[in-house]
Amino acid sequence: MENAKTKVREILDTVKAAGRDSLTAPEGKLVCDAYGIAVPQEGVVGSAEEASTLAASMGFPVVMKIVSPDILHKTEAGGVVVGVKSEEEAVEAYEKILANARNYKPEAHIVGVQVQQMLKGEQEVIIGAVTDGSFGKLVAFGLGGVLVEVLKDITFRLAPATKADALSMLDGIQAAEMLRGVRGSEPVDRDALANMIVRVSELVSDFPEIAEMDLNPVFATKNSAVAADVRIVVDFEAKEPRYRPSEEEVLASMNRIMQPQSVAVIGASSEDGKIGNSVMKNLINGGYKGNIYPIHPKAEEILGYKAYKSVKDVPGEIDTAVFAIPAKFVAAALTECGEKKIPGAVLIPSGFAETGQHALQEELVSIGRKYNIRMMGPNIYGFYYTPANLCATFCTAYDVKGSAALSSQSGGIGMAIIGFSRSAKMGVSAIVGLGNKSDIDEDDLLLFFEQDPNTKVIAQHCEDLKDGRAFAEVARRVSRKKPVIVLKAGRTSAGAKAASSHTGALAGNDKIYEDVFKQAGVIRARSLRDLLDFARGVPVLPTPKGENVVIITGAGGSGVLLSDACVDNNLKLMPMPEDLDKAFRKFIPPFGAAGNPVDITGGEPPSTYKNTVLLGLEDERIHALILGYWHTIITPPMTFARIIVEARDEMRAKGIEKPIVASLAGDVQVEEAAQYLYEHGIPAYAYSTEIPVAVLGAKYQWARGAGLLE
Amino acid sequence: MENAKTKVREILDTVKAAGRDSLTAPEGKLVCDAYGIAVPQEGVVGSAEEASTLAASMGFPVVMKIVSPDILHKTEAGGVVVGVKSEEEAVEAYEKILANARNYKPEAHIVGVQVQQMLKGEQEVIIGAVTDGSFGKLVAFGLGGVLVEVLKDITFRLAPATKADALSMLDGIQAAEMLRGVRGSEPVDRDALANMIVRVSELVSDFPEIAEMDLNPVFATKNSAVAADVRIVVDFEAKEPRYRPSEEEVLASMNRIMQPQSVAVIGASSEDGKIGNSVMKNLINGGYKGNIYPIHPKAEEILGYKAYKSVKDVPGEIDTAVFAIPAKFVAAALTECGEKKIPGAVLIPSGFAETGQHALQEELVSIGRKYNIRMMGPNIYGFYYTPANLCATFCTAYDVKGSAALSSQSGGIGMAIIGFSRSAKMGVSAIVGLGNKSDIDEDDLLLFFEQDPNTKVIAQHCEDLKDGRAFAEVARRVSRKKPVIVLKAGRTSAGAKAASSHTGALAGNDKIYEDVFKQAGVIRARSLRDLLDFARGVPVLPTPKGENVVIITGAGGSGVLLSDACVDNNLKLMPMPEDLDKAFRKFIPPFGAAGNPVDITGGEPPSTYKNTVLLGLEDERIHALILGYWHTIITPPMTFARIIVEARDEMRAKGIEKPIVASLAGDVQVEEAAQYLYEHGIPAYAYSTEIPVAVLGAKYQWARGAGLLE
Repeated sequence: MENAKTKVREILDTVKAAGRDSLTAPEGKLVCDAYGIAVPQEGVVGSAEEASTLAASMGFPVVMKIVSPDILHKTEAGGVVVGVKSEEEAVEAYEKILANARNYKPEAHIVGVQVQQMLKGEQEVIIGAVTDGSFGKLVAFGLGGVLVEVLKDITFRLAPATKADALSMLDGIQAAEMLRGVRGSEPVDRDALANMIVRVSELVSDFPEIAEMDLNPVFATKNSAVAADVRIVVDFEAKEPRYRPSEEEVLASMNRIMQPQSVAVIGASSEDGKIGNSVMKNLINGGYKGNIYPIHPKAEEILGYKAYKSVKDVPGEIDTAVFAIPAKFVAAALTECGEKKIPGAVLIPSGFAETGQHALQEELVSIGRKYNIRMMGPNIYGFYYTPANLCATFCTAYDVKGSAALSSQSGGIGMAIIGFSRSAKMGVSAIVGLGNKSDIDEDDLLLFFEQDPNTKVIAQHCEDLKDGRAFAEVARRVSRKKPVIVLKAGRTSAGAKAASSHTGALAGNDKIYEDVFKQAGVIRARSLRDLLDFARGVPVLPTPKGENVVIITGAGGSGVLLSDACVDNNLKLMPMPEDLDKAFRKFIPPFGAAGNPVDITGGEPPSTYKNTVLLGLEDERIHALILGYWHTIITPPMTFARIIVEARDEMRAKGIEKPIVASLAGDVQVEEAAQYLYEHGIPAYAYSTEIPVAVLGAKYQWARGAGLLE
Repeated sequence: MENAKTKVREILDTVKAAGRDSLTAPEGKLVCDAYGIAVPQEGVVGSAEEASTLAASMGFPVVMKIVSPDILHKTEAGGVVVGVKSEEEAVEAYEKILANARNYKPEAHIVGVQVQQMLKGEQEVIIGAVTDGSFGKLVAFGLGGVLVEVLKDITFRLAPATKADALSMLDGIQAAEMLRGVRGSEPVDRDALANMIVRVSELVSDFPEIAEMDLNPVFATKNSAVAADVRIVVDFEAKEPRYRPSEEEVLASMNRIMQPQSVAVIGASSEDGKIGNSVMKNLINGGYKGNIYPIHPKAEEILGYKAYKSVKDVPGEIDTAVFAIPAKFVAAALTECGEKKIPGAVLIPSGFAETGQHALQEELVSIGRKYNIRMMGPNIYGFYYTPANLCATFCTAYDVKGSAALSSQSGGIGMAIIGFSRSAKMGVSAIVGLGNKSDIDEDDLLLFFEQDPNTKVIAQHCEDLKDGRAFAEVARRVSRKKPVIVLKAGRTSAGAKAASSHTGALAGNDKIYEDVFKQAGVIRARSLRDLLDFARGVPVLPTPKGENVVIITGAGGSGVLLSDACVDNNLKLMPMPEDLDKAFRKFIPPFGAAGNPVDITGGEPPSTYKNTVLLGLEDERIHALILGYWHTIITPPMTFARIIVEARDEMRAKGIEKPIVASLAGDVQVEEAAQYLYEHGIPAYAYSTEIPVAVLGAKYQWARGAGLLE
């Protein structure tokens, strides 16, 4: 491999020395050779006669192409002739190409004409690599052809990609079936394609100066993959890597910031309605047990706490400084925090990058870097960490403790999180505002919540990721331990436009986010409600042990909609084994429907629900249950809810735990029943067949990504 | 046209006389000629010499194909040679084709070899027709090629299709861009393609015995469309058309059933818990003012009403008979209803087709047909018609009057409708159970609700449509007057499987439903919640006059998510004109974001919301508003809600009405504010950016389909 690197380094040095920004075809071929990327037989000739001789030696047909550092778009220049079938045609083609090239760009330096073995494949594909501002090097795969371009059927992974990543790309395009052989055509060599993807991803990772690479087309047959054309674009300007402390450093700071022994409130106030007053009240009324130091230029005491003129006057250590002063005073106060060696600043004030004041924000970043202060914000509502009874925010105090850690880039979305949490009684461990993300961002939070014993699920709203690669690398590890759910706003071009007018963030290509999230095991929420419902429901559910889902329903109509929802959420309805079918039939009326869904029919007493649910929990072949309840007089909603919890508890006592979700169709009393079920560990929804199944789907997606179902 | 029909009739008669089920290529060509469907120049030859002469006269290249009534799959038989380039090649091809054909099927009758002009086109497409059990004749369009097959990128319309339908098909495939010319290729002749689609649709409509038709490929160029290959499959067995009374007859019956002067309850009971008791109580307690006649074999009186042994004993007319007796007694009682000339029977009892008792259900259908009784059910909860205070059901009495008419095929879904309606205070005009749909189905309800002044929106849940064509024809007209929203369950193959185990209904191909709904102007709900939210919100909103949507938001983060939702729901964010941008800027802080969304920023007082909303309502270029509220102390939720309603009322007083929807991000108080807004005609949702926009999107989809935006 070192040998390969040396060869590529030499070629790139030549290109750099020549001041070029792309490689010639022969150079591209040499790079491919070095990295084991198969290319066709070829050679460069300087005369029509040589062309004819070389072509004959390879065997016809051949392709002939102009070689010139000055002509990048060869086809456009008339510099390509395909399907050259004989020696005479080779002579003609040579002359035509040269004439066209001279016509296209008279001053172009012409190296010669490349003669290349012409390939045929079952399938033409494209393998390439790009450099993204947030994610860095990405490898791409798609089918060849205009139609695929129109349909934008292409998939990305972070480079370097593993062989498993590469194989997942072959299944990751809409037209994946084409690779498996359609209408009698042979399937392609998946191994060869995956290896080529891996090698391209290694090449661009080894040489950051390779900005873009295209193997287009690659001819894939049942036993080979050969890149017919290679295009490599380079950029020798070194990018400054983003500042990123080590994980140990991040954790050391984050642990102090999120669970402080002492908090200073810079701009604390006794005056109602001031932000510095709300923050003080929330700290006090929220029940925070650590030291609270109000900082104020004149006051002696604020809300019963001794006040100081500066953090530097505070006798003991301070872990977290919450800022509630106007933007123009922040830099000076932040410097004092640095001198006091405070590890974290919560920058509530707005008036920075989001209002065009980029210089003001940059100043904070420099001060933070200088003194090693980690900064949350600016332009945020602050944060809550409920295990420490800490409400470091100007919003209302929040008190429903639980295991979901949420964050939002936007304050409005943060307020929606707070309202929903309270209304739905979703317990949270933390709610964090990230705002302008001048420093602390989603990956820092992931690192903290990864090791936080109070957090079981992490749900984040973001509009961009400043460092998508860092996020993906951390998320990939964290998501194997705890579900990571992300609502990426600015999915669509209209949304992305709104996002940039809002935060000045460059919106990433959404398909890249989509694929990288998948690669990192991140569950992507499609809407705000999904983010909230997943954060609420996923930690409540036990982890399934396998893919077999069974629907038990009192309403046949719900069964159909629940089945639709299973398909939409990638859940697998277990084909019902004959013996189990018989066992279910013992409990249900003769006209109840067999199979899956198990349709117990509408007029049944509580015992039918209970018996079938017990059977579903007990049988080892079933891994998860979806219940469809139909409100009747014989089994009222709360009766249903109680017997389902009973059945679950009976089985739990025997050591059996499986995820159960429920859809409740009925009059308003089903709302109380749904709440009861939720509080007892069974995500349940009134008037909806789709949301409970989506919650179960999110749990499954996580379990699959974390390798818990294999 | 009559001439064309005569020609096709003659050909089909020949095929029928010969006992064949498909047409030969020359027959297909003649059919196409008659209907003005362009096909290539061609002729059939009986010798190699003739082949060579004819081919030379057309110009090379040509395609040559075996002509034999016994060989349907010509390629498989080796009976096709493409790209014949010279007279010698034509001779060779003729001999090869004959030899292959004899080898493939020695007993085949060989008519000769067809020589056909070989076409090249910018784009190969497929135009075809199929016969569907529910929808009848459908015309289909897609691109040619295996990839398109893999992606299932094909679109359907009811035949006959109008020119507008046909043009919409060209835009109705995912790969539509291909037809407009990609990467320098010429756009195809849309007019020629649309005409060909129309003609195929007319042909199959004129001749029901044409079961399937394939023009594959059709070569489309910038100025022509020529069908290179024609395949026509026929089926001469006449299908019995579905029984369908005239619209006048349907309406006459439905008006009496839904708004009866007198109701009989067959199986009325004094005993609590009996269905016949619940129905009686609901009629009485629901406030129904007409006559109520309990029918009971022995009782003199039930719940204070004089009882009769049979409907025949009742002195006056009866409009609606509600059945609450076991299945086995239904047929006899129904016959009595017939003799009494009762126009409608509400068949609550179960135990018919849904439990495999098909004969029992067929018996009811015969009796109904004989006496001209329209039947709802069997296997239903009954129905509500609130303008008449009529609760002809065993469920709880329902009392929130309003303008949404809902129906469900499933009882469970019906209960969910009732619960949601009550909980969300969604006013309804009717809730109807359709169950097994032995007779009355969705199109009957559409006809009634079309002319019902109490109904402004129609929302239906169904698992199948017994007569999709009748539904589509009625819906196409009704949807131009009132929004028609349909939740089609069994969308996915798993859902469809559950649907058939539940109702014995054959699940239709979902793509056909999708396309036909679109053609008929039906709004398709993707989930139960969507059905309910659309039914609740769409009638509340005034109809927009144009496509320009503007977002006004206090939370930038909501603005981004609302923009995403606009794209998802096919809403167009108006590019903000410079003068209007300036006008908005007058009201918002200097760092508020320009353009659309209008980001007024979070810390603003109520006046900023009010002023910007007033401006948005007043400016004629804006047609609809989406509001994003962010809970702050300075503008609390109810303050926001009240000033928005005020602003709306001020403008309404000036004769200005535009749809407004709102997304509320905040603490739990936003729930009350959302309810207040909804009750005042502004669909508003807490903790959701996507639902309010989806509701507006549904309104727009309807307005577009009804031609109100042009």
